[in-house]
Amino acid sequence: MRYEELVIEGRNAVLEYLRSGRPADRLFVQDGASDGPVKSILREVKKQDCQVRFVPKERLDQMSAEGKHQGVILYGAAYAYAQVEEMLEAAREAGEDPFLVLLDGIEDPHNLGAILRTAHQAGAHGVIIPKNRAVGLTGTVARASAGAINYVPVAKVTNLTQTIDQLKKEGLWFVCAGMDGDAMYRVNLTGPIGLVIGNEGSGVSRLVREACDMTASIPMKGKIDSLNASVAAGVLCYEIVRQRLAKAGNL
Amino acid sequence: MRYEELVIEGRNAVLEYLRSGRPADRLFVQDGASDGPVKSILREVKKQDCQVRFVPKERLDQMSAEGKHQGVILYGAAYAYAQVEEMLEAAREAGEDPFLVLLDGIEDPHNLGAILRTAHQAGAHGVIIPKNRAVGLTGTVARASAGAINYVPVAKVTNLTQTIDQLKKEGLWFVCAGMDGDAMYRVNLTGPIGLVIGNEGSGVSRLVREACDMTASIPMKGKIDSLNASVAAGVLCYEIVRQRLAKAGNL
Repeated sequence: MRYEELVIEGRNAVLEYLRSGRPADRLFVQDGASDGPVKSILREVKKQDCQVRFVPKERLDQMSAEGKHQGVILYGAAYAYAQVEEMLEAAREAGEDPFLVLLDGIEDPHNLGAILRTAHQAGAHGVIIPKNRAVGLTGTVARASAGAINYVPVAKVTNLTQTIDQLKKEGLWFVCAGMDGDAMYRVNLTGPIGLVIGNEGSGVSRLVREACDMTASIPMKGKIDSLNASVAAGVLCYEIVRQRLAKAGNL
Repeated sequence: MRYEELVIEGRNAVLEYLRSGRPADRLFVQDGASDGPVKSILREVKKQDCQVRFVPKERLDQMSAEGKHQGVILYGAAYAYAQVEEMLEAAREAGEDPFLVLLDGIEDPHNLGAILRTAHQAGAHGVIIPKNRAVGLTGTVARASAGAINYVPVAKVTNLTQTIDQLKKEGLWFVCAGMDGDAMYRVNLTGPIGLVIGNEGSGVSRLVREACDMTASIPMKGKIDSLNASVAAGVLCYEIVRQRLAKAGNL
């Protein structure tokens, strides 16, 4: 399998890409640029959940492969994003309690790809990622997912805390991964659940942690702080699988 | 933390490095080279568990950073290797059943680093890797291990199957990760154990699989084949942790 990294440079190319409705992941615009074409691009990009960053010209020069960025470089998403509602619908159709994985700022594309793979294999109904300060569905993520990106829906939301609050109204409970929680074996993970995994370096952010109902910890016998984020996600996803199998009398 | 990748080029530099007794990971020698200095290098490198490969001159030219390889390039190991016996000794000292992780050909340094991190946090007494067709303790592995490389002993062996046979005489049972095994929850993982994780693409090799006592599978609900190797290692290591806690009455 090969996936193309979509990098679009130059005002016309970026504008046409956006107008075609194809998914955009990140837009980089030169500091201070505000002429007509740039305004059109900024207007178009608002129709999508795309991160927009203003950066110095030197940064764009570094990023540019063709040297013709004209002040704008767009990273296209390798895959389209789904809606959270579709995930709940999929759970309903399967007659299963919803099982979602929320990623609070995963930055490494290999970690995101490995987590998509795990979420799919563990039977999660979808993965939710934030719009900002996180990697999106790039070609590297697609490759690292080993094909799972084609099966597990991924939604990108503006504010994880708001999404958690909305999903609580749908009956989901939220558990976040954290060192200070109860051992995961003692936390009830069998109902409709959202599992929150934090950033590689800083873990789950304070507001998101406070929005969660429970914190579950993985027992650590070693002298370092934590596990790799995709490994921690895997261990917790499979504790959910185990508890659900046990509850259904299948262990 | 920063770790240096040790790449040594040129006959004198390589020979001096080897004579100093510092750990070597892989030696690349130009096809057909067999003069005095190369023979000395080949003699010195035999004193260590270092992989030796003969490659065309063009390959060395590509690998060379300085352009002065003179037919030899050596990758130094960022960390020294341990002996398997030290791991059993560590288990004895801790009054614990031995828990070893054997990696049958992990090639991706990020995976090896993440597995060292997991093994350390899960309380494994050591990790065993094969000399050939596998990544060793490079700087990238050290970084990906997030410091665990300083705590968990890693041994490099010539033949994994022989090592398994020797360890069986010490009372260890071997379980390999595989799709065709019993669900991991139903396999008894509480005694002295060696957990075998296979290569990213091809899994556990036939001979090694046949040397194992049991095969344990991770339940998969998805449409793809497997999990990322470091995630699979994490899920299985923590199933061992869970079963040991349960057996000790600590769950």
